[in-house]
Amino acid sequence: MSGNDDRVGVWLFGARGSVATTTIAGAAALRHGGYGAASAGLVTELPDFAAGGLVPIDRLVFGGHDVVETPLVKRLERLVAGGVLPHGIETLVAADLAAVEADLVTVREDERGPAGGGAADSTADVEVVRRWADDIRSFADRHRLRTVVAVNVASTEAPYPLDDRHRDLGLLRSALDRGERFLPASSLAALAAFEAGAAFVDFTPSTSIRPRAVRHWAVEAGLPFGGQDAKTGETLVKSVLAPMFSARALKVHAWSGTNLLGGGDGATLADPRHAESKNTSKERGLAELLGEVDGEVHIDYVEELGDWKTAWDHVVFSGFLGTRMTMQFTWQGCDSALAAPLVLDLARLSAAASERGHVGAMPFLGFFFKDPVGSTEHALLRQYDDLARWVRGC
Amino acid sequence: MSGNDDRVGVWLFGARGSVATTTIAGAAALRHGGYGAASAGLVTELPDFAAGGLVPIDRLVFGGHDVVETPLVKRLERLVAGGVLPHGIETLVAADLAAVEADLVTVREDERGPAGGGAADSTADVEVVRRWADDIRSFADRHRLRTVVAVNVASTEAPYPLDDRHRDLGLLRSALDRGERFLPASSLAALAAFEAGAAFVDFTPSTSIRPRAVRHWAVEAGLPFGGQDAKTGETLVKSVLAPMFSARALKVHAWSGTNLLGGGDGATLADPRHAESKNTSKERGLAELLGEVDGEVHIDYVEELGDWKTAWDHVVFSGFLGTRMTMQFTWQGCDSALAAPLVLDLARLSAAASERGHVGAMPFLGFFFKDPVGSTEHALLRQYDDLARWVRGC
Amino acid sequence: MSGNDDRVGVWLFGARGSVATTTIAGAAALRHGGYGAASAGLVTELPDFAAGGLVPIDRLVFGGHDVVETPLVKRLERLVAGGVLPHGIETLVAADLAAVEADLVTVREDERGPAGGGAADSTADVEVVRRWADDIRSFADRHRLRTVVAVNVASTEAPYPLDDRHRDLGLLRSALDRGERFLPASSLAALAAFEAGAAFVDFTPSTSIRPRAVRHWAVEAGLPFGGQDAKTGETLVKSVLAPMFSARALKVHAWSGTNLLGGGDGATLADPRHAESKNTSKERGLAELLGEVDGEVHIDYVEELGDWKTAWDHVVFSGFLGTRMTMQFTWQGCDSALAAPLVLDLARLSAAASERGHVGAMPFLGFFFKDPVGSTEHALLRQYDDLARWVRGC
Amino acid sequence: MSGNDDRVGVWLFGARGSVATTTIAGAAALRHGGYGAASAGLVTELPDFAAGGLVPIDRLVFGGHDVVETPLVKRLERLVAGGVLPHGIETLVAADLAAVEADLVTVREDERGPAGGGAADSTADVEVVRRWADDIRSFADRHRLRTVVAVNVASTEAPYPLDDRHRDLGLLRSALDRGERFLPASSLAALAAFEAGAAFVDFTPSTSIRPRAVRHWAVEAGLPFGGQDAKTGETLVKSVLAPMFSARALKVHAWSGTNLLGGGDGATLADPRHAESKNTSKERGLAELLGEVDGEVHIDYVEELGDWKTAWDHVVFSGFLGTRMTMQFTWQGCDSALAAPLVLDLARLSAAASERGHVGAMPFLGFFFKDPVGSTEHALLRQYDDLARWVRGC
Repeated sequence: MSGNDDRVGVWLFGARGSVATTTIAGAAALRHGGYGAASAGLVTELPDFAAGGLVPIDRLVFGGHDVVETPLVKRLERLVAGGVLPHGIETLVAADLAAVEADLVTVREDERGPAGGGAADSTADVEVVRRWADDIRSFADRHRLRTVVAVNVASTEAPYPLDDRHRDLGLLRSALDRGERFLPASSLAALAAFEAGAAFVDFTPSTSIRPRAVRHWAVEAGLPFGGQDAKTGETLVKSVLAPMFSARALKVHAWSGTNLLGGGDGATLADPRHAESKNTSKERGLAELLGEVDGEVHIDYVEELGDWKTAWDHVVFSGFLGTRMTMQFTWQGCDSALAAPLVLDLARLSAAASERGHVGAMPFLGFFFKDPVGSTEHALLRQYDDLARWVRGC
Repeated sequence: MSGNDDRVGVWLFGARGSVATTTIAGAAALRHGGYGAASAGLVTELPDFAAGGLVPIDRLVFGGHDVVETPLVKRLERLVAGGVLPHGIETLVAADLAAVEADLVTVREDERGPAGGGAADSTADVEVVRRWADDIRSFADRHRLRTVVAVNVASTEAPYPLDDRHRDLGLLRSALDRGERFLPASSLAALAAFEAGAAFVDFTPSTSIRPRAVRHWAVEAGLPFGGQDAKTGETLVKSVLAPMFSARALKVHAWSGTNLLGGGDGATLADPRHAESKNTSKERGLAELLGEVDGEVHIDYVEELGDWKTAWDHVVFSGFLGTRMTMQFTWQGCDSALAAPLVLDLARLSAAASERGHVGAMPFLGFFFKDPVGSTEHALLRQYDDLARWVRGC
Repeated sequence: MSGNDDRVGVWLFGARGSVATTTIAGAAALRHGGYGAASAGLVTELPDFAAGGLVPIDRLVFGGHDVVETPLVKRLERLVAGGVLPHGIETLVAADLAAVEADLVTVREDERGPAGGGAADSTADVEVVRRWADDIRSFADRHRLRTVVAVNVASTEAPYPLDDRHRDLGLLRSALDRGERFLPASSLAALAAFEAGAAFVDFTPSTSIRPRAVRHWAVEAGLPFGGQDAKTGETLVKSVLAPMFSARALKVHAWSGTNLLGGGDGATLADPRHAESKNTSKERGLAELLGEVDGEVHIDYVEELGDWKTAWDHVVFSGFLGTRMTMQFTWQGCDSALAAPLVLDLARLSAAASERGHVGAMPFLGFFFKDPVGSTEHALLRQYDDLARWVRGC
Repeated sequence: MSGNDDRVGVWLFGARGSVATTTIAGAAALRHGGYGAASAGLVTELPDFAAGGLVPIDRLVFGGHDVVETPLVKRLERLVAGGVLPHGIETLVAADLAAVEADLVTVREDERGPAGGGAADSTADVEVVRRWADDIRSFADRHRLRTVVAVNVASTEAPYPLDDRHRDLGLLRSALDRGERFLPASSLAALAAFEAGAAFVDFTPSTSIRPRAVRHWAVEAGLPFGGQDAKTGETLVKSVLAPMFSARALKVHAWSGTNLLGGGDGATLADPRHAESKNTSKERGLAELLGEVDGEVHIDYVEELGDWKTAWDHVVFSGFLGTRMTMQFTWQGCDSALAAPLVLDLARLSAAASERGHVGAMPFLGFFFKDPVGSTEHALLRQYDDLARWVRGC
């Protein structure tokens, strides 16, 4: 896919959610120059990435899918009221949001939504992939985009049972051809992206690109994919503290955590089945960094916290000759305000990878993820250095 | 200096303090195999350092200076009662401690102690250097040591006024020759080490090797030096959190800290003049990592905490478009139990540097220090990689 | 029950557990005067209670039941190693513990233990009550005790299904007569105490005196009972913070808590069925103090913490015109060291109540409990004032 | 002073500060019914006070003095931007604030401001008292108020040296008559209030009513006075936690605290001389509740925190036989939003006291203060009960 324009499309699955809205509104605000120095949180604006020739933020065009129809501007008002974005931004970006509305497609009732399919859906998977791919292609054509990258920012799905159709590309294709319905919405989204010639990045821990057959599809299509499950809070901190304990040879005995969060994300994760996806990817990193460690991780829904998240972690470790010590931290962050700039970073980086012909997993994006595709490195600073090295190599 | 033995001497200035006693007793306990897997906290025992050919722990021999005369075994009992070291170790290492006693020299009344000179001292600096160097040489000869490294673990001195005699090696030598008294105890200790052919590492933020002329002395003598101010708690954590904020482009607005500590160290730092040395080196790293950041650091003496230290840090940072967020951490550690293995690490590493002919500052030891000599890198993980690379290169 | 001696018996169900062992060893240590001013935590030693004529600590005699046979002295060694009790106490109280051993009865295999009966038990409830009551009576006779109080400090039972036999004293008696097995161990313990003429206090949230018929039995026997579920940590703090928010008209929106604990208690509570009893009584107080409040309470087993408990609580509240604010606290306590003096307090107070002819629930003991029998007051300071008033009235 | 109106005047010294503005705007918002259930934080709206016949909030009329001239509406905008008050309130209360502007008097250059006099002032104290009293009387007449109470919410003054003129009412009067200048602004404010027939309450720890002669003046005038230093955060929490430790006989060894605050209050308290007043009154309560306790209290100015305050406290205590334990809490509150409703409470309660002829200190207001005038009770819940009892007695 390539247009004669210099603009890059960002296709968001879950385009009316908090993260997507913050991303779209924030990019617009930056374009208007309203928050000059305040581009805080954009990794790709750091000096280390200056020479990478990444697409400028103001050359990004947004479109996407969602199951709900709440106008972006309504969503933005709620985010501003909740302290996620500054007052005044509504006026600044109103026209931009209205423009993006034209590129948002509501998922049809007979399809399963990217947020986890409904019981009522009856359309064959092959048909859903076809329709969604058409939506992305139309978006690309309409704006004459040189590249499109798709990012999944929909709510976390429950774990999905996998069988041979998910492991073998031939079986997957024939099951599609037979009109079977065997894929979760996130995997349909990934396939649709690949069909439309777009890179795909999963910001969530949903199934999407986990099945081997889905990854093979991307490779056959000559496209890159990346993910999963962006680290924006507790896990981000863990990914620097755990290497600290390792580097100092301090044995970690137990690491316990409690996450309090409100908002739509909190409500979804309050459902134990959805939380399971989350916890699995949260714990993977710690185990790789420290080996087996005692302790549980809780995710509690606290409605009053809105888009804010409070995480408390408690670590028991020992020093010389086994003397027990403890460390605690409390992180009070706004998930959407932490996530949105990363979505922009990922879009820019994936577009660069795609344009430079990178095919398959993008391990150099591990810096962003709890469960990095194609990499077992979980130490944040080493991941940063890997990313910077890759960008310099572009 | 070189004996026909395979043993390495560790000469401790402040040899009867908590850190020194924990180091000596801990090394003895490891020698007895009493705490097998519990060698927690020994960085140089990590796989990354296995190929470095470092001197084994059981080949280290301890000696040192102190102004007080409390027997090591008494000190050890207090440390065990305070939970720094495990019950039972007293019996295990009693004989070892008794043996080390023979190698501990009490600083004479007419000298200034390594812990900050007394008013009564009247001996010329040149004479103090000569005596202390003799003590180290006798120690080396007595045990036929192949190498000796000196480590300053005495209490932190107050900042010391410097003049041209501290900057110019010629002026320093002539002032010494004239019998002047113009050097703090920590610098006398460094010069004594160099005179005796020993490497010198400062575990504290005292003056010691800060004066340029002292460093030139080491270079002339063909010896390495390192330091300063080991990071064992709050600063250790800062050195991974600050790079995390930087790597994620999260702007840090304020970083405040309160350190509560008891023990002798706490009492010394309760004196604002001594705390000044500490705070200066504590803040250096943060500024290098994050630029100018608001916030104060307090060091409070809380007698009841004994050898334990509690640090609380509070960070105000902002994400996308300036949204304010906070992070707090509480570190509850036992300083001596964190410091002692680092003293062993530094002794092994400095001995290796010395034997391989390294001269001058040892920037690869930055991993251990708040204010690393010869380096401006403060990110812990990068410091670790530098150290591991140096050891592999040996 | 009354002897010609001035001593009071304390019969502990769960007599070889951490709380019981700490209680017995601590009382012995106080008797030896080894910890003079260190009687910290004994409420009944405060000046407000001086005039109450309570039995002196050194006039308490201990006996009890347990399912395990670990000698007290072994248990004590573990508690000392875990930092619950000071080193040196083992020697001081060795003889006392040996003496108490003679008054500890191991629950027979065919009975159900106070810690929650086994599947294999086959003895009729009536027979268990008879045996256990005999044990208490023998203890009283052997020592010519003027009074005995029984305290349940066994592990928390899972919730127990109740039917009409638990509600109606007549039905309960006839079910016993028919040889039925329908009572949990804790209720058998309560009935055995009443049969032996002893007051009964439940330190745990187990079923024991919850059934109405059990309470009627006590009233018929003219004996007092009290409980349940001692507040020693998180709930203790809640019982002063919640009234603070109320008194200041600050609306509490959410109160979340995570409790990390090791030891036997932690392992039991890691079983969700047992935790259910605990959580129910934990939440009762908060609801009574603040009305319906959002938020969950977790109890996690972290083996490494041993007898220590760390609780983290997070409160979201609002001030004027709805401005959201937060408060967090971390409590790091040693449960057994907090609980043991309360067992002594409860023994002294219940003995006084019993001797003064108090019959039925003891609401003035609410100060000690999460779920106070006969009282809906949960504000700690008001509970304290009620207790002090009752003692003065004695 | 008494009008034929049913309204009560509230004269604020420091009328354009954060607390005053929040008070005035909040009262107006409540009057408009805009925040129905959101009257959180108004103690006098609790059921316990319903029968007290206190003046309704919508019958309060505001006026006051200040040294600065920033319009209330500007100040309000800053408070709304800082998250102290909800967006939308500016429009709701614009007219009310404009009306209050007419009753705000700017302190003349030749007077000393309530915020701590300037060097340039040259007017005799007697003249300042006369002018300020006239301002209050005009306010009362203009609105035909039945009662006026004055509340000092100006910035905390530095401690002020006192001599015999402050201790003896006769000497004070003659010094005034001689045209001497020997009183700090806060004491001039108190005398002016008494001259105008108004009760005086000090929300701050400034000198105001501390001098005995000032109190005698109030008594001669037949007026009540109260204060000092409202407890809105850290000290509020201390005043329930300290009694908890006492009631449980848990020995507190050390209590350390760090307060981070921005805003004007933070800047003032960053000046050690001003902080001294604050710390003195902060520590008084703890000492009365717990006896001598180790530990320091820090107040740090962190500009980024704006009107928000973060306090971290660390308590070392011991349980049975001396086992050491710790508790920490972090309070993140908005001082103005916590203080404003208390100003309304104090105005209503003082007006009631004044109208019922109460003369001199008002010890029943101790509930609100760190350093309560006329009372040594510091336990919050007992203070609450005292207050409720007094109101019921009205």
